Amino acid sequence: MRTLYHLPLDPDCRLIRILLGEKRLEFVLKTEQVWQRRESFLELNPAGEVPVLLETDGTSIAGAPVIAEYLDEVYRDPPLIGADPLDRAEVRRLAQWFAVKFAREVSRNLIEEKINKRFLKLGQPNASAIRAGLANTHYHLDYIAWLCDRRRWLAGETYSLADVTAAAHISAVDYLGDINWDKHPGAKDWYARVKSRPSMRAILADHIAGASPPAHYANLDF
Amino acid sequence: MRTLYHLPLDPDCRLIRILLGEKRLEFVLKTEQVWQRRESFLELNPAGEVPVLLETDGTSIAGAPVIAEYLDEVYRDPPLIGADPLDRAEVRRLAQWFAVKFAREVSRNLIEEKINKRFLKLGQPNASAIRAGLANTHYHLDYIAWLCDRRRWLAGETYSLADVTAAAHISAVDYLGDINWDKHPGAKDWYARVKSRPSMRAILADHIAGASPPAHYANLDF
Repeated sequence: MRTLYHLPLDPDCRLIRILLGEKRLEFVLKTEQVWQRRESFLELNPAGEVPVLLETDGTSIAGAPVIAEYLDEVYRDPPLIGADPLDRAEVRRLAQWFAVKFAREVSRNLIEEKINKRFLKLGQPNASAIRAGLANTHYHLDYIAWLCDRRRWLAGETYSLADVTAAAHISAVDYLGDINWDKHPGAKDWYARVKSRPSMRAILADHIAGASPPAHYANLDF
Repeated sequence: MRTLYHLPLDPDCRLIRILLGEKRLEFVLKTEQVWQRRESFLELNPAGEVPVLLETDGTSIAGAPVIAEYLDEVYRDPPLIGADPLDRAEVRRLAQWFAVKFAREVSRNLIEEKINKRFLKLGQPNASAIRAGLANTHYHLDYIAWLCDRRRWLAGETYSLADVTAAAHISAVDYLGDINWDKHPGAKDWYARVKSRPSMRAILADHIAGASPPAHYANLDF
């Protein structure tokens, strides 16, 4: 069976879980505690990071953007990176926006400080990193609203890797209870449509012992 | 004329310059001082970052990995991201290795501390970041040697986006004089082959006023 090595709150891993769901590809999840640097895991990915996808024939593919491109090339239906090169560039630009910029400004700050430091006992969370992460959330949600004023989905008329990547990051931050949806009706409308997709079911069912999500997290009508 | 907005020592920008050279596409360079946040530049790329490629018809494409995929889709000759999906995944895995991991562990530390802080007058360089950057250099160069023991180029038998990305980052670090090539004969052999390609000529001719490269930087026999 196809296996995805992952960590539940890692947005890069959530991205691949959502993508596999959209492509209706079956897989089993294995939690990989990357900080243990297991030797047989390092053989799958010398970078020692999740996500890693292990195909049934033993092929392994490492890293969220690499796996995403691979899945879209091999399992064409539905295509999630657009058709012509400029559409594809727009999908990738916005996927990168969330994978790199949102990660650096929001999700990494919050997840690192609130979850990783606590569970790995790496010391007190850095309050100024958390404050920065929370403050930066707003303009990204405004950008989502701005895009959805002009298009049905983030990168155009169809749901794409841009929406998947944004959903992966935003769902992780929402798990922490760090999004004030009432202040962002435009982004909330987009996220309500995202949440109602079957590919989000497993993500919304995530539950980490000792760090419960807020009540609205899994609620489709939030 | 096709225009690339760039910064000379930014590895992401060097990557696109090398790629355009490999594809034999003509372009002019414009230095964009991104910290000024020029309004007409933000219209080209709301993320406010270089590189941005402006095609002759006015189309703009932003971000190194996005531009790289776009160029390889539109200008097929020579292909630089491999043929079948698994080859393409290996090229992208190693391109990501340098674009993300090497950047985080080596090039960003050194360029940020030694160049950006100095020219933008952002205070004293952080000595421990520089030490970490220098120490991390070695295992990446060992990895290049390890790969080249098994393959002609980093991702396989042909020169690819993996080599371009590694060359972009390593040339920037080498400009700072921070690579001890005598300790890394395997990586040196690979870099000598990279340097002799016509696509590297303009990179090796770079000269930033007030921050000269070491004598060996542009030397093909270093």
